[in-house]
Amino acid sequence: MLKVISTLNGFIQPLRSLHIVRCSARRYTLCPFYTHDTLQSIRGYNILQLSLQHYPLNILTSQFMESLTDFFNQIQDRSISADALIIKSSIPMIYSAGLDLTELIINNNFDLDKCENYLTTFESFWLSLYCLDIPVLSLIEGDCLAAGCIIALSTDYRIMSDIDSKMGINATKVGITPPFWVCRLLSQAIGVSRADRAIQLGTVFSPKEALNIQLLDQVVSPKDCQAIALSVAEKFLFVDSLARRTIKLRFREELISELKNRLNSDRNELIRIISSDTTQERIRKLLKITKIV
Amino acid sequence: MLKVISTLNGFIQPLRSLHIVRCSARRYTLCPFYTHDTLQSIRGYNILQLSLQHYPLNILTSQFMESLTDFFNQIQDRSISADALIIKSSIPMIYSAGLDLTELIINNNFDLDKCENYLTTFESFWLSLYCLDIPVLSLIEGDCLAAGCIIALSTDYRIMSDIDSKMGINATKVGITPPFWVCRLLSQAIGVSRADRAIQLGTVFSPKEALNIQLLDQVVSPKDCQAIALSVAEKFLFVDSLARRTIKLRFREELISELKNRLNSDRNELIRIISSDTTQERIRKLLKITKIV
Amino acid sequence: MLKVISTLNGFIQPLRSLHIVRCSARRYTLCPFYTHDTLQSIRGYNILQLSLQHYPLNILTSQFMESLTDFFNQIQDRSISADALIIKSSIPMIYSAGLDLTELIINNNFDLDKCENYLTTFESFWLSLYCLDIPVLSLIEGDCLAAGCIIALSTDYRIMSDIDSKMGINATKVGITPPFWVCRLLSQAIGVSRADRAIQLGTVFSPKEALNIQLLDQVVSPKDCQAIALSVAEKFLFVDSLARRTIKLRFREELISELKNRLNSDRNELIRIISSDTTQERIRKLLKITKIV
Repeated sequence: MLKVISTLNGFIQPLRSLHIVRCSARRYTLCPFYTHDTLQSIRGYNILQLSLQHYPLNILTSQFMESLTDFFNQIQDRSISADALIIKSSIPMIYSAGLDLTELIINNNFDLDKCENYLTTFESFWLSLYCLDIPVLSLIEGDCLAAGCIIALSTDYRIMSDIDSKMGINATKVGITPPFWVCRLLSQAIGVSRADRAIQLGTVFSPKEALNIQLLDQVVSPKDCQAIALSVAEKFLFVDSLARRTIKLRFREELISELKNRLNSDRNELIRIISSDTTQERIRKLLKITKIV
Repeated sequence: MLKVISTLNGFIQPLRSLHIVRCSARRYTLCPFYTHDTLQSIRGYNILQLSLQHYPLNILTSQFMESLTDFFNQIQDRSISADALIIKSSIPMIYSAGLDLTELIINNNFDLDKCENYLTTFESFWLSLYCLDIPVLSLIEGDCLAAGCIIALSTDYRIMSDIDSKMGINATKVGITPPFWVCRLLSQAIGVSRADRAIQLGTVFSPKEALNIQLLDQVVSPKDCQAIALSVAEKFLFVDSLARRTIKLRFREELISELKNRLNSDRNELIRIISSDTTQERIRKLLKITKIV
Repeated sequence: MLKVISTLNGFIQPLRSLHIVRCSARRYTLCPFYTHDTLQSIRGYNILQLSLQHYPLNILTSQFMESLTDFFNQIQDRSISADALIIKSSIPMIYSAGLDLTELIINNNFDLDKCENYLTTFESFWLSLYCLDIPVLSLIEGDCLAAGCIIALSTDYRIMSDIDSKMGINATKVGITPPFWVCRLLSQAIGVSRADRAIQLGTVFSPKEALNIQLLDQVVSPKDCQAIALSVAEKFLFVDSLARRTIKLRFREELISELKNRLNSDRNELIRIISSDTTQERIRKLLKITKIV
């Protein structure tokens, strides 16, 4: 329950701490890709809300991810104070459309290096999010595709607004193989066979379908999204913090440790696939359609 | 189908064998924590029913668990004859409320040893139940919480009475981290992501909710519980015994073997968490509320 | 969408390529156990449809499996051209009733060898199916039992006709323990606890029940089966082929690699169980009832 939950307009009062405001201001010039506010709950918890706003589709460019990685690392080392984190988007109808396909166009050896660097940036970004020990929630109010869906899968709780939008890992449609740890993440959420099929087919789901297969935890009406995200964050903070953190880490340690062993070979396989003629053709065609290139 | 299934009153006729009666009598003075009866089915199977009755909440005290471990071991080595086992409670509205929190209060090094001994007793108890090769069913007619839920999760089939009661592993609410094998057990039943969330949040479920997420196999009306438990036990006995035992062991061998490698480090981590100030405070507060201390 | 989807009668036009016809003709004399047709989709994909017809129950005799293994291997090495494979039965009301129990009758050491050879044939058959890198679909229009269900579980997508029929692994009822990789396959589809229970009990499911627990992907009316199977096959072919193949292999590689380590010990355990008096008795009784012996 929030202090001001009864106030209809502006019932969520963003109480920006001095630190946060300073941080936002400093960052805005460097990376105007997101904002963050601290929402204070009745129990006095600081619930940090991160709003992605990298127009037009929250595409995960290198710079965007590096800046987010830095942000997550500061939360983890307590330079930024937060008891819980809610990740949402401030761009209407979009959570994130995923990776930056322009980084995956390969014409020469130089591009191969660029592609490898980009994938490494993505891995670091993902790890910095996945290893956060505070509770992390996704508040999804629009399309949540490919690596956007991976962000959501890496959080502890997924709430989606009941609007006409899609969620899923559609990478194979562009000829891209999601890394093995994405297969694992999705399997843990929706079961192995279903994940196998969904990734092979590049299936995207409506909010209700996603809820049915446990890709989501809740589907709520658009107007209730924010309040529900906060009340769920409070639930996570109601339990003992050390016990909860230990459990969160335990459920992640196996994948993290496997990651260290497989990361290089997995990335090389992915680059090999991305470099293939058919994938390059699919990527270029898609970029043409979306008019990004 | 039972021989006397048509008799409305007392349609289940406990046919105590001489052995069982003697055993019950002998045990009653030593450990009045439970009773057991042999229910004979039409096909001539001996279905042993264990009724926990350690007032008021079937709290798993050291003595209670040691006595149950001894009982399970006797079933396993065939000193006690049973084709299948049903575990229920004879205390109204309660299956078990879990561990004995008084054993987890730590004031000094002596208490640390006491706590470690207690957890070791719990592990032995759990293993003796989990490794039973006969079919084991839970008949849950009331709250089934924390280690009570772990008992249920370790049996082959879970039936719950459709009454106002709760089931779940709420340990984090008291600041306790369930052992890794509990995370595994719950993941196997309800899926990894859902288990992660349920344990992080310490969620408890109504019978219907528990059924929906596959924490339960059946929810039945209170008056049908007993008959259904028996008919399910019969189903387990209808298949070939050697083949069924082999399958049961195979589905458990991986966790049992992992257990041997991780048990000490896992227990040490748990003790570290239990010893923490916040957990000690939560335990004391809860004990005060429940007036046990 | 098929080219001739609007034609009511014979809307699926089997376009047998010369190669296929020659292959079918040559094979018919050797192994009249199945036929195969190439169905051509609008997008020009060759969708191969394999119709099992080993009367009366598509029992997996050695010869039947060897001939299918050969067929699958030719698909895998591209001697037979196919973009996707649909496996169905041309025997009404039956997909497959599973293993050939006569091969499992053991009277002497000679029979032990025969039994071991038979199981090895089954393993090779299964591997040749499981490792196929093209999309493989099951179109189930009747009982799909024991090893018949294993075939279905090894394909990428399972469609069942909504008729009065059963699906499941009922091996324990005959005293047979499914190999560990079958336990794994079923766990991946329906979850570990549910698989444990279903195999222990030898449970068979109606189409709707099988759909509810994710043993099936779709249950459709008998008249729509064929068209839906084709449209799903097209969906698999819509995504990038290399990316899809890589994902398919990745989801299978763990089990395949474990298989190599455990296969011998697992087979020996199975033979020990098959040789047991109770299992031999159950097998003989069943063969008597079904009048096969």
